[in-house]
Amino acid sequence: MIGGGPGAFIGPVHRIAAELDREIELVAGAFSSDPGRSREAGEAYGIEPSRAYADVAAMLAGEGERSDGIDFVTIVSPNHHHLPAARAALAAGLPVLCDKPLTANLAEARLLAVAVRDAGLPFGVTYTYSGYPMVREARDRIAAGVLGTVRKVVVEYPQGWLAGDAEGKQAEWRLDPARAGEGGCIADIGTHAFQLAEFVTGLRVTRLFADLAAVVPGRQLDDDAAVLLRFDNGARGVLLASQIETGELNGLRIRVYGDRGGLVWRQEDQTNLMLHRPDGSSEILRAGTALGEAARRASRTPGGHPEGYLEAFANIYRDFARQLRGEPGCAVPGIEEGLRGMAFVSTAVAASRDARGWVDFGI
Amino acid sequence: MIGGGPGAFIGPVHRIAAELDREIELVAGAFSSDPGRSREAGEAYGIEPSRAYADVAAMLAGEGERSDGIDFVTIVSPNHHHLPAARAALAAGLPVLCDKPLTANLAEARLLAVAVRDAGLPFGVTYTYSGYPMVREARDRIAAGVLGTVRKVVVEYPQGWLAGDAEGKQAEWRLDPARAGEGGCIADIGTHAFQLAEFVTGLRVTRLFADLAAVVPGRQLDDDAAVLLRFDNGARGVLLASQIETGELNGLRIRVYGDRGGLVWRQEDQTNLMLHRPDGSSEILRAGTALGEAARRASRTPGGHPEGYLEAFANIYRDFARQLRGEPGCAVPGIEEGLRGMAFVSTAVAASRDARGWVDFGI
Amino acid sequence: MIGGGPGAFIGPVHRIAAELDREIELVAGAFSSDPGRSREAGEAYGIEPSRAYADVAAMLAGEGERSDGIDFVTIVSPNHHHLPAARAALAAGLPVLCDKPLTANLAEARLLAVAVRDAGLPFGVTYTYSGYPMVREARDRIAAGVLGTVRKVVVEYPQGWLAGDAEGKQAEWRLDPARAGEGGCIADIGTHAFQLAEFVTGLRVTRLFADLAAVVPGRQLDDDAAVLLRFDNGARGVLLASQIETGELNGLRIRVYGDRGGLVWRQEDQTNLMLHRPDGSSEILRAGTALGEAARRASRTPGGHPEGYLEAFANIYRDFARQLRGEPGCAVPGIEEGLRGMAFVSTAVAASRDARGWVDFGI
Amino acid sequence: MIGGGPGAFIGPVHRIAAELDREIELVAGAFSSDPGRSREAGEAYGIEPSRAYADVAAMLAGEGERSDGIDFVTIVSPNHHHLPAARAALAAGLPVLCDKPLTANLAEARLLAVAVRDAGLPFGVTYTYSGYPMVREARDRIAAGVLGTVRKVVVEYPQGWLAGDAEGKQAEWRLDPARAGEGGCIADIGTHAFQLAEFVTGLRVTRLFADLAAVVPGRQLDDDAAVLLRFDNGARGVLLASQIETGELNGLRIRVYGDRGGLVWRQEDQTNLMLHRPDGSSEILRAGTALGEAARRASRTPGGHPEGYLEAFANIYRDFARQLRGEPGCAVPGIEEGLRGMAFVSTAVAASRDARGWVDFGI
Repeated sequence: MIGGGPGAFIGPVHRIAAELDREIELVAGAFSSDPGRSREAGEAYGIEPSRAYADVAAMLAGEGERSDGIDFVTIVSPNHHHLPAARAALAAGLPVLCDKPLTANLAEARLLAVAVRDAGLPFGVTYTYSGYPMVREARDRIAAGVLGTVRKVVVEYPQGWLAGDAEGKQAEWRLDPARAGEGGCIADIGTHAFQLAEFVTGLRVTRLFADLAAVVPGRQLDDDAAVLLRFDNGARGVLLASQIETGELNGLRIRVYGDRGGLVWRQEDQTNLMLHRPDGSSEILRAGTALGEAARRASRTPGGHPEGYLEAFANIYRDFARQLRGEPGCAVPGIEEGLRGMAFVSTAVAASRDARGWVDFGI
Repeated sequence: MIGGGPGAFIGPVHRIAAELDREIELVAGAFSSDPGRSREAGEAYGIEPSRAYADVAAMLAGEGERSDGIDFVTIVSPNHHHLPAARAALAAGLPVLCDKPLTANLAEARLLAVAVRDAGLPFGVTYTYSGYPMVREARDRIAAGVLGTVRKVVVEYPQGWLAGDAEGKQAEWRLDPARAGEGGCIADIGTHAFQLAEFVTGLRVTRLFADLAAVVPGRQLDDDAAVLLRFDNGARGVLLASQIETGELNGLRIRVYGDRGGLVWRQEDQTNLMLHRPDGSSEILRAGTALGEAARRASRTPGGHPEGYLEAFANIYRDFARQLRGEPGCAVPGIEEGLRGMAFVSTAVAASRDARGWVDFGI
Repeated sequence: MIGGGPGAFIGPVHRIAAELDREIELVAGAFSSDPGRSREAGEAYGIEPSRAYADVAAMLAGEGERSDGIDFVTIVSPNHHHLPAARAALAAGLPVLCDKPLTANLAEARLLAVAVRDAGLPFGVTYTYSGYPMVREARDRIAAGVLGTVRKVVVEYPQGWLAGDAEGKQAEWRLDPARAGEGGCIADIGTHAFQLAEFVTGLRVTRLFADLAAVVPGRQLDDDAAVLLRFDNGARGVLLASQIETGELNGLRIRVYGDRGGLVWRQEDQTNLMLHRPDGSSEILRAGTALGEAARRASRTPGGHPEGYLEAFANIYRDFARQLRGEPGCAVPGIEEGLRGMAFVSTAVAASRDARGWVDFGI
Repeated sequence: MIGGGPGAFIGPVHRIAAELDREIELVAGAFSSDPGRSREAGEAYGIEPSRAYADVAAMLAGEGERSDGIDFVTIVSPNHHHLPAARAALAAGLPVLCDKPLTANLAEARLLAVAVRDAGLPFGVTYTYSGYPMVREARDRIAAGVLGTVRKVVVEYPQGWLAGDAEGKQAEWRLDPARAGEGGCIADIGTHAFQLAEFVTGLRVTRLFADLAAVVPGRQLDDDAAVLLRFDNGARGVLLASQIETGELNGLRIRVYGDRGGLVWRQEDQTNLMLHRPDGSSEILRAGTALGEAARRASRTPGGHPEGYLEAFANIYRDFARQLRGEPGCAVPGIEEGLRGMAFVSTAVAASRDARGWVDFGI
């Protein structure tokens, strides 16, 4: 693990998710750029002290010398670390699983894409929400034509934790362009919403209009974003992401409408998937029951025994482990999805800043 | 009543709403431009046959001759009738309650505003949703500062009934520019959403960006709209209205976020108002319980005995009746709100059609 | 109207419900046993002063002399008035619609049943909740076999308004055996739950076990009740009613399970009906959409425009008006349902008081 | 681990829960009474082949000889195995964590209680639902007096998976008195509901009335149960458990009412806790936000990132691990709670079978 040192919420989450199915074990890390803090984190994670390294280079060197060295690297540090960390790992011959957004900016993302292509190694991006069983069921139902032709997508990601004076390690780096990169909210959670929309519908965004703002005075990066979308089949979309919607926790949700039906999924009510019919009745499908293959594989408990965020995250890790072992049908979102996410951030930021109106989108 | 002939859903709704509190009685009407159908409607409503008139002029003349003639006119016909009907009624010295959108286009709305001003008579617009108790409670809580400074407003109005081949009288005229006017969905339900946002927040829209489309092939008027807003205090807004979101019924909802709290109301769950606090907890207020004066006055039953759409509508009618009688504190949305609604339609339609980007908004 | 004087919540509710569809008009009443208060109420209702009578006898006499006298009587006074008022009205040749519970005790109920039989006049009981469209849809779906054989019924009626020191006219008479009769909570709301269970399932209770208590110190009548049921097909049931469940408003709900499906309806979410399937998925049906004949007839608005308690009540009144006019298929719950309700109260009260265990039930 | 062999849902759940926080590692097991299946399970769990033992005795012997032998035993096998397995482990000096219900019958439970007392070793029972953060918050709020004096408790546990012809390993042993013991549904899930009620309220049941039945023809054990309760402070309770409520998944829920407030928690909506106030408003508290110490310690993710069943289960395991290490404030439900659960099963089964009416309850 690269990153995930003391105070980072996301490190322990990755650890739990990675190990949940006993297919992956956290054995080494460069958890912090401060060697003492890296050791401290290693201790908290319960790994061998000698494998809590002072920096990435030391980790790659140290592990490279072991017969039981690490099999892949997961990167959970702030965005500006992603490119150098990933390139170093790939150069050392190690597959990489990288947190989103892919990098701090689009130029870095393109460099990373080249590195991944050149290395020819597996590379995944932890778009966590595509690990939820009902998200996979939604994707499969849409692919099977249950909604007919998709015409409209509304994806929203309301949060409120940056509505006030943001405190703590999580807030600090996310609001700092030097570490977070080009985008604030649009990068931190907008990329999740963007990927979810493309993942669930199977469509690709081709144009967008963006309206971003730093609502809380003094901020350099956006904390609120409204983006209008066009998809490659002509469908219209709305993507809303905000971190200043006071009282909202992690309200990611998506609604998709076709000419034959509609569909709703909400992350905070993650075990249910609602399908609307043209006659005004709806169907509720529940995780852990008789669903499609993908949703079933993504559930560990029977219906009514809720699995949540950690299990969705674990599905990404398990898929990546199986992808490394060459199991068919197991692939996590990869460099292309990561690159598309950064193109989304970069395009939206520039389009909003320069008031460009509608702009074409692509990678 | 002008309009509300056979086949119109909205006529009987107005009749029930008007009479619910026994302060108004439907006694006369020009229910249809077809005299036979007007008579037929009169019979269905149970009024005296002689007071089911062949047209508006006949009604105004006939009622003018009676000592017990009508006290005001309510206009529920398709949009293009509103201006002539309202002008005629005002000219006859009668107050007018008019369905939304105010008129078929902004030019007509301006003419009507002049007529109202000249007549010096009460004029109201049936923005039904501002009749709900919890909408009034929301407005009062925001005015009292419960949310702090409002920063963000998201108002959505999803419907799906025009997702397919629209059939029936309701659909027919709404899709016809000659009768509906400039706007389709944006006029029919977008105006409700717009008024709700301004009503609840007490803010005024000053700029907008609009993206409208006729999604179903062959339509001349928009059936889907996304509009980004700026309010006079700098707050940002998103207004979504659609009639092609398959399976949605009448999903009007509004979320308002300030720096000290958030608020959610949904028309299909009309008795509840949710207030979000910065700490992630929420409060649910319920209609019919210990609420503010305005909400209490707008409820007829104790908590847990749901009132709904008809009662909200009845509140508009009752307020209008009391306004006519000069009771203090009883006023329904008036010509200014009607005019703002039409300016919203006209501005959004033109801005979207001409791809003007952000445009200033005002009346 | 008999009863419904100043301070009574239920009088205006009956007035609105009765008049909602313009098939009934409130024209006369004996609203209070205090002549002054009766006049005051008449004024508030807007009826002719001369038709606000000092007592029931005066009303029946006065109306009997008019050519346009009343067509039927509705009784909304406290329970102990029901029997004398109904007998007097029937004796005067008038049909009667009577609030529930039918009478103050079972002996009175039997006397009333005799009077109804002897009079040969229409007699209805305002079991309001059977007026809801989705309750009728539930009944029809179960009758059509959607759930298979019904095995289990859970009906609950939680309220909290008597959890504290009960104040006001509503609370006062309900807690007084001289006016309320044998039962407190079990009569006031338990009878609603009982009727709902029999109405929706089409089954009849044949045995019960009752556990009633006056939870708040000093009360003479029960304010909390748990009753276990057996139905005539062998199905098991649970009926819970309480008025001391602090914070509950009017949470009547019913769940029915058969060998092929389950069903849930909640009065506070009255527009939805949920059907559970054996595979763990569910279907949500919504009022105002493509439902069965009975539900459609009981709706006035399209889906998504919520109707509520007043409209459900109005359905009872409208059905009674049509029953009086001899329209087929329009009948409200009658004397038998009223009598069953009182037998339920009486049996449950005695069985609980005397700790009789399981007892047979019938009328 | 004892039990948890191929086909058992609960084995992998225990494995994930135990290991989630890296304080426990599954290293050995007697997973099945069939040695081949035990080996097969060991392989699936990824443990050393030599530590997948043929039976409990072999495991205790084999592990006893290792310097890195197991530190405690978790028992997840069918109920009739609990007593011998637990006694053997205790005799070998090992702490025991045991699935519920404690044993197959009350006589066994008493024997086990003696064994635990004699051994003087930690003993826990996996009452999973008391591991949920919001259940702990509920308990702490009630203990702090938020509801005032508790007067009424309604705990329900609806499931539907045994509504039809039960198939599979899970169903088979639960329906067999030789393996499940005295109780069916009442033991399998009724004990959960019973423990939850006592855990959340801090009260103890002192009397009960039970009505159990085998609804599906041919069953020897109950599959549906209604039990009325009295608590030691005089509060009244209702406990409903069913496995034949078609379409219900795992709907455990509890409502508690005091003289100053009410409280609702539902396992399928596990992250929310609702508090009702006397004025009809409610408060919703959410897991992962600013809650009490116990709830905070039981959460791993920030609000809005749902944790579920596995994490609740993991909290039980983590608490047990910490209890073994002697950390203060970390104790899981123990032998007394297990014994109370079996007394509940035994008392309810006998009282229902013999129609004893209300019976005293105690251990």
